[in-house]
Amino acid sequence: MFPFDTLISINKANNTPIYRQITIAIINAISNGVLKPGTILPGTRELSKLLGVHRKTVIAAYEELNSQDWITIIPQKHAFVAENIPHLKPKKWNKNTPPPSYNNPFPIRFKTVENIVKKEHDHPIPQLVIDDGRPDIRISPIDSLLKTYRTLTSRKHTSNKAEQEASQGTINLRQELVRYLSETRGLTISVDNLLITHGAQMSIYVAAHLLSDPKTTVLVGKPNYTMANKIFEQLGVNLIEVSVDENGLNMDEVEAICTQKKIGLIYIIPHHHYPTTVTLSSERRIKLLELSKQFSFAIIEDDYDYDYHYASSPYLPLASGNHHGNVIYVGSFSKVLDPSVRIGFMVAPANFIEQATLFRKTVDVGGDSYMQDALAALIKDGELKRHLKKARKIYHQRRDFLDHLLKEKLSDYITYTLPPGGMAIWLKLNKNSEVTKLYELTRRDRLLISNINEKQNALRFGFASLNEKELTEAVEIIEKCLKLITAD
Amino acid sequence: MFPFDTLISINKANNTPIYRQITIAIINAISNGVLKPGTILPGTRELSKLLGVHRKTVIAAYEELNSQDWITIIPQKHAFVAENIPHLKPKKWNKNTPPPSYNNPFPIRFKTVENIVKKEHDHPIPQLVIDDGRPDIRISPIDSLLKTYRTLTSRKHTSNKAEQEASQGTINLRQELVRYLSETRGLTISVDNLLITHGAQMSIYVAAHLLSDPKTTVLVGKPNYTMANKIFEQLGVNLIEVSVDENGLNMDEVEAICTQKKIGLIYIIPHHHYPTTVTLSSERRIKLLELSKQFSFAIIEDDYDYDYHYASSPYLPLASGNHHGNVIYVGSFSKVLDPSVRIGFMVAPANFIEQATLFRKTVDVGGDSYMQDALAALIKDGELKRHLKKARKIYHQRRDFLDHLLKEKLSDYITYTLPPGGMAIWLKLNKNSEVTKLYELTRRDRLLISNINEKQNALRFGFASLNEKELTEAVEIIEKCLKLITAD
Repeated sequence: MFPFDTLISINKANNTPIYRQITIAIINAISNGVLKPGTILPGTRELSKLLGVHRKTVIAAYEELNSQDWITIIPQKHAFVAENIPHLKPKKWNKNTPPPSYNNPFPIRFKTVENIVKKEHDHPIPQLVIDDGRPDIRISPIDSLLKTYRTLTSRKHTSNKAEQEASQGTINLRQELVRYLSETRGLTISVDNLLITHGAQMSIYVAAHLLSDPKTTVLVGKPNYTMANKIFEQLGVNLIEVSVDENGLNMDEVEAICTQKKIGLIYIIPHHHYPTTVTLSSERRIKLLELSKQFSFAIIEDDYDYDYHYASSPYLPLASGNHHGNVIYVGSFSKVLDPSVRIGFMVAPANFIEQATLFRKTVDVGGDSYMQDALAALIKDGELKRHLKKARKIYHQRRDFLDHLLKEKLSDYITYTLPPGGMAIWLKLNKNSEVTKLYELTRRDRLLISNINEKQNALRFGFASLNEKELTEAVEIIEKCLKLITAD
Repeated sequence: MFPFDTLISINKANNTPIYRQITIAIINAISNGVLKPGTILPGTRELSKLLGVHRKTVIAAYEELNSQDWITIIPQKHAFVAENIPHLKPKKWNKNTPPPSYNNPFPIRFKTVENIVKKEHDHPIPQLVIDDGRPDIRISPIDSLLKTYRTLTSRKHTSNKAEQEASQGTINLRQELVRYLSETRGLTISVDNLLITHGAQMSIYVAAHLLSDPKTTVLVGKPNYTMANKIFEQLGVNLIEVSVDENGLNMDEVEAICTQKKIGLIYIIPHHHYPTTVTLSSERRIKLLELSKQFSFAIIEDDYDYDYHYASSPYLPLASGNHHGNVIYVGSFSKVLDPSVRIGFMVAPANFIEQATLFRKTVDVGGDSYMQDALAALIKDGELKRHLKKARKIYHQRRDFLDHLLKEKLSDYITYTLPPGGMAIWLKLNKNSEVTKLYELTRRDRLLISNINEKQNALRFGFASLNEKELTEAVEIIEKCLKLITAD
């Protein structure tokens, strides 16, 4: 008889029930060819003694094996390995046969998106994080949102109705957005011009896919929002970087490129360019729309933080300007509510939205329709507007407070231009201090600066999510570390 | 002077505030070249009279234009169009110049995912929906989930900590899943083998992308889950369909193909094949794992409704069998909780999960970490298990009830095999009744059959979401319509 006690090793500390451990071991032995078709299995009493388990456990295992056709039980007699198992190359039985497991690397070639460099620095867990410009969830109206969410789910009326409209976004949310985008951004659209996505990133991904292939030339700013560049790299397009100055992307460069080659697409963040926060001037806006018409290229306008402006009204988006329907406008509520609540949207002509919806379904069937309807209610009630008014005031104060702190503490080490809006300041370090060094030193002091740019020797200081005490603390740590660096 | 009153048309019924309507009209006129740099604008008093609006409204518009550099205001004198606007080809002023709008089709070539055929049948809104196998949200524990969700958000401790781990899934949920998948599916994995996605579709999408390019040969069942096929079509792979019989995909066919050409990947649903609900036999499972090792191809195992089995324990997944780490296992909680709560997962070796996480970030930054942690709590508390036990009992009764109804009412028109689990029955119509006709007739009777298969002359009858009254009603409408069809 087979050494069933070595074949089946039971681990009582394991979370898998013992009868399952037995089942799995026997299935593996059959699959391996160790137990051949027709092999008679030990009786349940016998095996239970061998393994030191209750007889009922063995019976449960045999019943499961039987129900799955791995073994045949002849009542009152015995059980044997089923005959209709195909003949397999028998392998030498080895006590050390590795268990089925995912411990080893994937054995087949697959695409590498990025080489992962493991940096093991043993940094302490950060106590303070300077993010790249995110809202303060401590003031977000998420509780209101969830109250409505619960009310909506408790209705549970027509079972899967909501699910069916989730690919494009619920009609309630799209209707509210038509009104909201008209009021806040001067957009003239209908519900057919809107696709709701799982965050703005998905909108950019979908639009980029529909508009480009490896032969397409795509223009982006230098520097640019990294996660947008990654999409284009992945699509294998011909990516050309256009320089960015204090008035945004350089349109003379864009024009020069257009006269030399066919451009398919430009990705632009005219309101507060990421990461440098500059605003595209009206002169350049006009020129961009002119060029896009003349050379027939599409524009993806990423307007991620339109809602935050302090000095004056923000520039209206390109999408509400005089274009010919070639501007795909992308926005998000993650910057307004909470980064966890991922609701973004895309505005485009209806025929584009139709195909974008179909494409989106292959990536992600649809969004959470309750959450979408809860957001629609938040907009309709005016609660979103009230929240934005409050947030704008708080973030404005925090920006000014940070401005004051930076002038007072860091003016010897950095330069920056105060942005008229948004949630972050772009700080350029002077030549004698390297931003990577600053990152390392502050990290040891439990401050994580999440967005640094090595090439530009700069960092993005998100001020919205930190209160005055936290801002002071963060700037003081940076000051201390910069003193150390420049003293070297 | 320009005819400002025709240039600026104000619509008081419009949701856009009037001062913004004025701003937009003037910006457009400047962009169009209708208003040239240096043009002096009418005084605020004068323009307010011309337009019939309050003077303060015009002042607000001018201030906004000024703050955005479109115009220059010389206090106590006048305002004029800013000089630094580039020289534009002037266009003939036309009262009928179309407003900036998304009404027209997108003017640039883009990819067509699918040709859209508009079927305008003027069907009434359905009162009853036969879905393709979805849970009954009336019994789902979503309220518990949301209670926990609210508790989690109200803590609002370390601001963006949760957001940072959202790309791969929160550590809480991954830890719970390691335990849960071991207990329920015999999987031996760690948190590094898990990627949480926005539904199972996203897991399939990501895995398919990493594993294939246009040169890859991919095998799928015929018929197959349409939304998986769409991913492969979009990737442009060489797709080969393998026939499906009562024991699942035909492995002799798979073997024959393997000996002829290099296979990159097979997509398979061994538990309850979609749409036909058949289970892959143990003989074929062993053969598939053998072949995948011998010919070195990857397996995407889609196990969308593992949790529902009525007759006996379900077959363990391929992923817990004796494979060599080449099985990418995909599952979902949308079938357990509510289709709106989109949480799916992928199991694979850690190096594959790393790249899958990076790829996923380009598509979708991350999931809702509160929802993920709320689900983790639901699993930890045992509430998910209790819910599944209850749901299994109810769906088992509904399956048997439907079986009884079908035998009693429809046995002259259809054939089917009762599946041992899952949430749907695959009904094949006899030759004399066409499923498309049935769809049309029932649709007029306010019953929507959401998943029909024209080629197979069959439909998928999801029984889980309908109670006994609803099942009876649906079958009676089908019976009535089939009588009509066969009487023709």
